[in-house]
Amino acid sequence: MGYGHGGDIYTYKDMLDFSVNVNPLGPSQAVLEAAKRGVDKCFAYPDSRCGTLRKALSEKLGIPPEFILPGNGAADLFFTLAAAEKPKRALIPVPAFSEYVRALSMVNCEVRYYQMEAKENFRLTERFLEELTEDIDMVFLCSPSNPAGQLIPEELLLSIIRQCGKKNIRLVLDECFIEFADQEKVVYAEKEVQEFPWLFVVRAFTKMHAIPGLRLGYAVTSDIELIRRLCRACQPWNVSIPAQEAGIAALSEAEEYKAENTREVIRIERMWLEEKLKRMEIRAIPSEANYILMYSRTDLAEGLKEKNILIRDCENYRGLGKGWYRIAVRLHRENRLLVEALEQIFERRTE
Amino acid sequence: MGYGHGGDIYTYKDMLDFSVNVNPLGPSQAVLEAAKRGVDKCFAYPDSRCGTLRKALSEKLGIPPEFILPGNGAADLFFTLAAAEKPKRALIPVPAFSEYVRALSMVNCEVRYYQMEAKENFRLTERFLEELTEDIDMVFLCSPSNPAGQLIPEELLLSIIRQCGKKNIRLVLDECFIEFADQEKVVYAEKEVQEFPWLFVVRAFTKMHAIPGLRLGYAVTSDIELIRRLCRACQPWNVSIPAQEAGIAALSEAEEYKAENTREVIRIERMWLEEKLKRMEIRAIPSEANYILMYSRTDLAEGLKEKNILIRDCENYRGLGKGWYRIAVRLHRENRLLVEALEQIFERRTE
Repeated sequence: MGYGHGGDIYTYKDMLDFSVNVNPLGPSQAVLEAAKRGVDKCFAYPDSRCGTLRKALSEKLGIPPEFILPGNGAADLFFTLAAAEKPKRALIPVPAFSEYVRALSMVNCEVRYYQMEAKENFRLTERFLEELTEDIDMVFLCSPSNPAGQLIPEELLLSIIRQCGKKNIRLVLDECFIEFADQEKVVYAEKEVQEFPWLFVVRAFTKMHAIPGLRLGYAVTSDIELIRRLCRACQPWNVSIPAQEAGIAALSEAEEYKAENTREVIRIERMWLEEKLKRMEIRAIPSEANYILMYSRTDLAEGLKEKNILIRDCENYRGLGKGWYRIAVRLHRENRLLVEALEQIFERRTE
Repeated sequence: MGYGHGGDIYTYKDMLDFSVNVNPLGPSQAVLEAAKRGVDKCFAYPDSRCGTLRKALSEKLGIPPEFILPGNGAADLFFTLAAAEKPKRALIPVPAFSEYVRALSMVNCEVRYYQMEAKENFRLTERFLEELTEDIDMVFLCSPSNPAGQLIPEELLLSIIRQCGKKNIRLVLDECFIEFADQEKVVYAEKEVQEFPWLFVVRAFTKMHAIPGLRLGYAVTSDIELIRRLCRACQPWNVSIPAQEAGIAALSEAEEYKAENTREVIRIERMWLEEKLKRMEIRAIPSEANYILMYSRTDLAEGLKEKNILIRDCENYRGLGKGWYRIAVRLHRENRLLVEALEQIFERRTE
């Protein structure tokens, strides 16, 4: 039960947490109230079909409810997918979220890694298309990527999708942070699923709605047979009633306005942080998400911990290594505290 | 996403539900309030180690916290166990909870069934010991059994445990309903785990604390390496914060008193129901749990549905078949409504 992720506030109590990437505005009262009303219904089993939630998502996304499968957080869906499909060989561009590999290792899948280069800001390029060969069963992409915050450009993404179709590869596209990106640059992959049944998009309520503690994510695919196999690969009641109720509430118009405001706050604060990091000569990878991957020869994680600030040390990411850190973009007063703490660390070093 | 279980109140709205077996007194306000306070903490990820809950369970059960693994409901633990251990051949006495087989089928496990006999009230007997052969990797037992409500007698259970040890068989003991049984007859399997590391006990908060909608169960074993493998076989954040908080609250002394009262209510009401069923010449299997398995040639499920009462048609249970039904033992006014409805069905038939 070790901690290989960010957000270990249970060991590091009362610290300012820049190690997880959820909406810094926090959850909405309306969503929390819905979850609490859900608690009052917990004398019954959850709807194993998540009927109301799937209908609400279906209306929001403009796709049939049969294309949607909610899960106990997005991470749960990776394990269920691996269990259901048992791919023999998978391809993962790294650095990436480590739960893909963990899920694949449960079905003894051979994992091939594709190194995205620091000198290209860990962007996926046309070169990646050559890696999509027939011996691969499954590819895991993430847009914007975690921890580097890179959106896959529309044209490249469509080329990858088509290439996967030709080579009979299931394409898993993790879009857990997509709502934080500039929406004009975003390919709405859920609209692509109808045309490309091998596309499996994973989304979460966790990040934008800031409810990681409730556990709610969903998958979208037009491969209805795959959804049936996924339903057989896990218990019928994996999504709790409070999570289902919170999800329904999170699809309101008010939450959409909040998402717009969040993107604006993130955009401004990310620019401010990037500017400050640049002045401290910390290399920051230009990000399109609500977090920034950065590099420093000075040990930042330990130094900040002394100042009660938690950041994500990315040393344990395959494809990164010592010196890489990820920080969340938070509210201005919090970002200022982080920058001040970093400035103190660098001043101390140069004294 | 079909419904093969009880509790489908989402299709059958506003019906009196005898198809699920949770505490008829319902959840305690203290437990629900704790879950709601948990909702307010959901801006953070859940403690992936479930530290506080495991500590509280450890104190309650008198075993080290390292022996305890919480899960997203008990059903989740069966899937995680199967995924982690990948047994080649398993043995299940039937009739039994269908999720054992579903979990095993995900790892292509060959399942051998042992038929418990209606003429023996579906009790496990000494004969079962002969079935525990070396080619079996895993056995699933349930005490009290579901749907028949039979406790495994202490001496037989200990013989089975020892035989499993000799034959190198992992023994999964589902005790999700154990808190409803006469506590003097109960073997506290959690105290046996220390001596028998191949014993894997599964418990739930779902039934006694009447919180199926929250999803919380736990496994107990002294095989710490197995627990490590289980942790690798699922996402790190599978137990939500509201579930962890509710679980901690459910371990209070007040909840223990409530459990005692619940057992008393269930005992009296079960006797009353058995007497009424006997008068209607419905065969009821004498139960030690909060539900009764019964047999009738008259179709009861459809007839009761017309009267807005939901019971569990057990036709789809392997080892049972047409004519078997399971009813929950509920509060007196509810049980009376069920009996009246049954009486009407039988009167109509004989008119």
